[in-house]
Amino acid sequence: MLNKEKSRFLSGKKLISLLIIVCISGFAIADEGMWTIDQIDQLDLEKKGLKIPLEEVYNPDGTSLFNAIVRLGGGTSEFVSPNGLILTNHHVAYGAVQKASTQGTDYLTNGFLANSLEEEFHMPGTSAMIIDEIHDVTEEVIMAGVKIKNLEKHQRAINVKIIAMTDAIEEGQEDVIAKIVSMYEGQQYLLYIYKRFDDVRIVYMPPLAIGNYGADIDNWMWPRHTGDFAFARVYVSPEGVGRKYNPDNVPYQPKKWLKISTRDLNDGDFTMIMGFPGQTSRSRTSHDINYYRKLFYPDWLERADDVINILVKAGEDSPEAAIAIAGMRKGIANYQKKYNGTVVAMDRYDFLNETLKNEKKFMEFVKSDRKLKKKYKNILDDISVLYNDKIAYKPHDDILGYFGLSRWRWAGTLPSVANNIFYIVKEREKIDSERDPKFSEKNVTRGAERLHNKYMGFYEPAQKELLKYFLEKSTKLPVNNRIKSIDELLVRNNLSPAEFVDYAFENTKLTDVEYTKTLYAYKSHELEKLNDPFIDLARAIYKENEILRKRNEIFTAEITELRKNYMEALWLMSDEAVYPDANSSFRFTYGDVEGYKPRDAVQYAPFTTLGGAIEKDTGVSPFDVPAKLKELYKSRDYGNWADPDLNDMSIAFLHSTDITNGNSGSPVLNAWGEMIGIAFDGNLEAMLSDWKFDPAIQRTISVDIRYVMFVTEKYAGADYLLEEMGLK
Amino acid sequence: MLNKEKSRFLSGKKLISLLIIVCISGFAIADEGMWTIDQIDQLDLEKKGLKIPLEEVYNPDGTSLFNAIVRLGGGTSEFVSPNGLILTNHHVAYGAVQKASTQGTDYLTNGFLANSLEEEFHMPGTSAMIIDEIHDVTEEVIMAGVKIKNLEKHQRAINVKIIAMTDAIEEGQEDVIAKIVSMYEGQQYLLYIYKRFDDVRIVYMPPLAIGNYGADIDNWMWPRHTGDFAFARVYVSPEGVGRKYNPDNVPYQPKKWLKISTRDLNDGDFTMIMGFPGQTSRSRTSHDINYYRKLFYPDWLERADDVINILVKAGEDSPEAAIAIAGMRKGIANYQKKYNGTVVAMDRYDFLNETLKNEKKFMEFVKSDRKLKKKYKNILDDISVLYNDKIAYKPHDDILGYFGLSRWRWAGTLPSVANNIFYIVKEREKIDSERDPKFSEKNVTRGAERLHNKYMGFYEPAQKELLKYFLEKSTKLPVNNRIKSIDELLVRNNLSPAEFVDYAFENTKLTDVEYTKTLYAYKSHELEKLNDPFIDLARAIYKENEILRKRNEIFTAEITELRKNYMEALWLMSDEAVYPDANSSFRFTYGDVEGYKPRDAVQYAPFTTLGGAIEKDTGVSPFDVPAKLKELYKSRDYGNWADPDLNDMSIAFLHSTDITNGNSGSPVLNAWGEMIGIAFDGNLEAMLSDWKFDPAIQRTISVDIRYVMFVTEKYAGADYLLEEMGLK
Repeated sequence: MLNKEKSRFLSGKKLISLLIIVCISGFAIADEGMWTIDQIDQLDLEKKGLKIPLEEVYNPDGTSLFNAIVRLGGGTSEFVSPNGLILTNHHVAYGAVQKASTQGTDYLTNGFLANSLEEEFHMPGTSAMIIDEIHDVTEEVIMAGVKIKNLEKHQRAINVKIIAMTDAIEEGQEDVIAKIVSMYEGQQYLLYIYKRFDDVRIVYMPPLAIGNYGADIDNWMWPRHTGDFAFARVYVSPEGVGRKYNPDNVPYQPKKWLKISTRDLNDGDFTMIMGFPGQTSRSRTSHDINYYRKLFYPDWLERADDVINILVKAGEDSPEAAIAIAGMRKGIANYQKKYNGTVVAMDRYDFLNETLKNEKKFMEFVKSDRKLKKKYKNILDDISVLYNDKIAYKPHDDILGYFGLSRWRWAGTLPSVANNIFYIVKEREKIDSERDPKFSEKNVTRGAERLHNKYMGFYEPAQKELLKYFLEKSTKLPVNNRIKSIDELLVRNNLSPAEFVDYAFENTKLTDVEYTKTLYAYKSHELEKLNDPFIDLARAIYKENEILRKRNEIFTAEITELRKNYMEALWLMSDEAVYPDANSSFRFTYGDVEGYKPRDAVQYAPFTTLGGAIEKDTGVSPFDVPAKLKELYKSRDYGNWADPDLNDMSIAFLHSTDITNGNSGSPVLNAWGEMIGIAFDGNLEAMLSDWKFDPAIQRTISVDIRYVMFVTEKYAGADYLLEEMGLK
Repeated sequence: MLNKEKSRFLSGKKLISLLIIVCISGFAIADEGMWTIDQIDQLDLEKKGLKIPLEEVYNPDGTSLFNAIVRLGGGTSEFVSPNGLILTNHHVAYGAVQKASTQGTDYLTNGFLANSLEEEFHMPGTSAMIIDEIHDVTEEVIMAGVKIKNLEKHQRAINVKIIAMTDAIEEGQEDVIAKIVSMYEGQQYLLYIYKRFDDVRIVYMPPLAIGNYGADIDNWMWPRHTGDFAFARVYVSPEGVGRKYNPDNVPYQPKKWLKISTRDLNDGDFTMIMGFPGQTSRSRTSHDINYYRKLFYPDWLERADDVINILVKAGEDSPEAAIAIAGMRKGIANYQKKYNGTVVAMDRYDFLNETLKNEKKFMEFVKSDRKLKKKYKNILDDISVLYNDKIAYKPHDDILGYFGLSRWRWAGTLPSVANNIFYIVKEREKIDSERDPKFSEKNVTRGAERLHNKYMGFYEPAQKELLKYFLEKSTKLPVNNRIKSIDELLVRNNLSPAEFVDYAFENTKLTDVEYTKTLYAYKSHELEKLNDPFIDLARAIYKENEILRKRNEIFTAEITELRKNYMEALWLMSDEAVYPDANSSFRFTYGDVEGYKPRDAVQYAPFTTLGGAIEKDTGVSPFDVPAKLKELYKSRDYGNWADPDLNDMSIAFLHSTDITNGNSGSPVLNAWGEMIGIAFDGNLEAMLSDWKFDPAIQRTISVDIRYVMFVTEKYAGADYLLEEMGLK
């Protein structure tokens, strides 16, 4: 135990190394947390209910359940047969199948079953990864920056080191991906070496009316009746190399796959989840919370509303248009509900004030000791200065971001692609010391190869409306936040936003993917001569993008250092258990099957049933139970999959595991390490979960594996899949 | 037990008298039912949990809890002190207090507490009644019609007899009201002799933010956090006569008042309710269900939507306008939610088809026996003929009804008042044998005296819009359903509906209540000479009203006979318990404190808490918890009223008693006959309850008496009321 007496004797440097040890060896463990896999021996899992040796869950020197877990796109999946069969969520496979569906067959609405390996079709844009090795590389990474006081240069040195290390590992390896991930705000660096598979094919996907039953209305909600699952298969070259789609590829033979549970599942049962949670912010200060609650969420939600309206209108053009834009709509709608829920939850918890109170206590603690005071007293003020700066630029940075730099590239595919190409070409022309440390030729090649994925779902009328909308937004920015380059571009050409858009789409060649791919090899002066309107747009805003990139880089370097120090000081203040914020790296979480009380006088039971799905049926999407499913219900034709206590099919269940986006598709395992479900959602009441874990209400919503098997066997008639999984 | 073998030997006439005995003596008792008070000795209440002798609940020869129950307007209330203090629902007192509030003081929003008897103010239009005597007068009433074969004349003779009997009782008695009520579709007639009190004064009414917390949004819903209660006081002349408001009146001394419970209340506890449920239709045929599901509810809901929109718009004029129309809005909104819920529930239960299936079984039963076949085989077909006729006239009758004949007089106050006066004057001029058997001079006098109540809430702009709306509806009726008199009136005056309305409101004197009162004494030819536009409208539609009245009279006479026969046959078919449909007469029901499962994976607990009310608080009406209530919650300043298990105030609870509209304000009693709550609502999931009782989901929602006392003592500081109730 690290206590305050001890901490007084620690100098800054020793403290850091001690803290690394502390956070890795851990101590008192609460029933929350997304733990790195090497931490599981500190969780006392046997006491919590685990019935198998820990080594069967994770064995760095051998084969364990860990080896069956697959990173799939932005989500998770898992091997369930020796022949490369994987299970994941319907909504994880959705995007790829949607892209394949634009060509005429509506696999989304009707579902898809391959009756043989030959019928399995490639999921464009989807790649799978498994972890081959994990190493702690903290020392090596930190040493790269240790002598550099300037924070920006310090962080740059670290980034350069990371790229060098991972490039060296990947060098000459077609299917190897190395990722070094910062844990605890840079207190620890872990290296994950993945094997990558670019040929993943869809095997079985239930129809929307099962796989997306309830859709956006029920999204994030309990009670839930969604059969959110899909089967896919991982393919490799005959030599076992994970390469891109090739008709000669063969199913991959994993060294470990999960056994499907045939046991009953009950309230209170132990469960565990492994997967790749995306991002949490559980140790942030009031400045972050203030920024997100007062600015980021409201601004984003306003933009999202407008973008959704544009898409809805475009979708009315034709069924094809609706299919094309479905993925984008679904993605935005998901975050709309999430962010709205987060805003409500922040207010309900009075989260900002609560955090401010904690920071007051923190400052009292810091001021109680001379050494602490010296090292930590300015942290909060310094963070405040950084955020004030960020806020001052926000209107400008937001709108510019939509053209390609931010995660939400809502101004459209062509501006984003053009920006990316122009950026790459310019980076190549820089001298080494000035180049973006995150730039990598390997990534460029990979990006160019997969460029067509960005064009899937491309529906020109919607793209035009979106670009027009964001250009107009740009022209209405406040004077001190103008995007000058866009102003100049429109003035120079004497065009209104609408006129520019019409002109641009009439005169661009970037709608041709194969043509666009060739541009990656151009020099910047060659690009400039093309007179393509989208390249011109990219070129116009390039300098402002560079400034923004630079500003973000400095902000990140400085805020990271401050956050790192803040975390150090917090650890000195409290004995609480420590797990790093989620960052898309592998994590383990556990908990029990458990309902919750969403509000006064209401109790949610942890299981929903097929009867409940039919109770919700209106005959109209998204509550349109397929006739065959109703028949199966009527005749109680459940095979061996019914729940004996419910006397019905269990569809979904709640459990108190700690997950977030990216865990979608993760296997849920019982005490014996058998697969009992697929995690697919959190609950709206716990929308603060990315910021704060509340054991009373935070639940994972998982589809019951018995429903997955029932639908696969009885509804789809895919007995051969059950045989492959050893169930027949 | 009446079994099928026996029934074969019964002739028609004997059967009727046997059935009367059967239904009065009862047999197998289900946990449902609104029982007449003389039936309680068949309910085995001791076994169900009652801890006091039955005689303490009802003793026809002495004093019992029964004597504390008060009929109050369209609802129920109860004496809770020896000094005439009564408790009822906030929403029962709402209308009267709203009427008093139009004069400047907004008692509704702010609440009202009289600090002494002098401050109590008269509730206009509210009268209270207690039952002095109950007699079975079946024989006497039935004999009046026994020799008359023609159904219309038969029913008329019965009605005439009833009026004669009740008039004889009321004769010379200022505060006596006699009501003879038909039970089991005319199988039994019960005479209730009431003592009436026309001077009821408001004592304490919490603010809207307590008494109507959640308002229309939460109406019919669980979880509920409404403190739906109000205290009033019944006044009489110094001699004890129930007369109208007079400053010399004194508080009435009831012979029985309820003791407020100070015990804990828990899940599973026995409860009972006495009161005046309005109307149920639990033994109707598919024709009724078809008529209501396919025509009545959809048509009514469409009209109600339009009327609410008109009122909402009018309410935007000013706060005064909003207050004036609040009562009408609230009344309609309540039925909107109820009828919408009923439609949904009918569909969910597939109620029409289920009933058709039962009728098929019924026909099989009837056809199985020669005698049964002879007597009953045509019932369903005959009912069908009557309904087809009713449906053919429906568009015409509906719109005409809104002008005054139906319960919903939405075309406005003045058309309705004018119609009523014209009808009265014309009835007086008829010879006895042609006169409406329901006509009574005594009722006329009473109506004239209370005429001003009809004008309260009168807001001319809204009244004009409503009349215009219904005149326009009239002019758009299908050709075979025109209201010819309205057509002619408009054509004769060459006015559009809008022009007629402007003209009528400009030229009428009927907006003057005192003037209007004088018209009751006119002859019809004198009325006609007035040239008042509303009298002219009444005169114009008088004949069509008379035809409609006559048609309804015949329909009622014929359908009553058929329903009576249908019920007879049903009794022969089944051994189920029998209680008469609700009809605003006194009823008893019992059940346990019990939650329910509204849908898959959701369980409702039977208690809500003050913490839950604050959880719902948004600061904006109707979810605006008063600051003082929040303070009391924060400081846990609950007096002796907190629930020990919840460690909070209990606000409302669920129990499995069987009630409907009219029970509002009814006392909820525990096993010891002490008052534990006030019934105020049913739940949306059980909206089919007027048609069918479902023990799994039908619940009464009652405000916990501990919350009533807590609010009265701690929030309002009305300790003197607690003293009056013997609690201090």
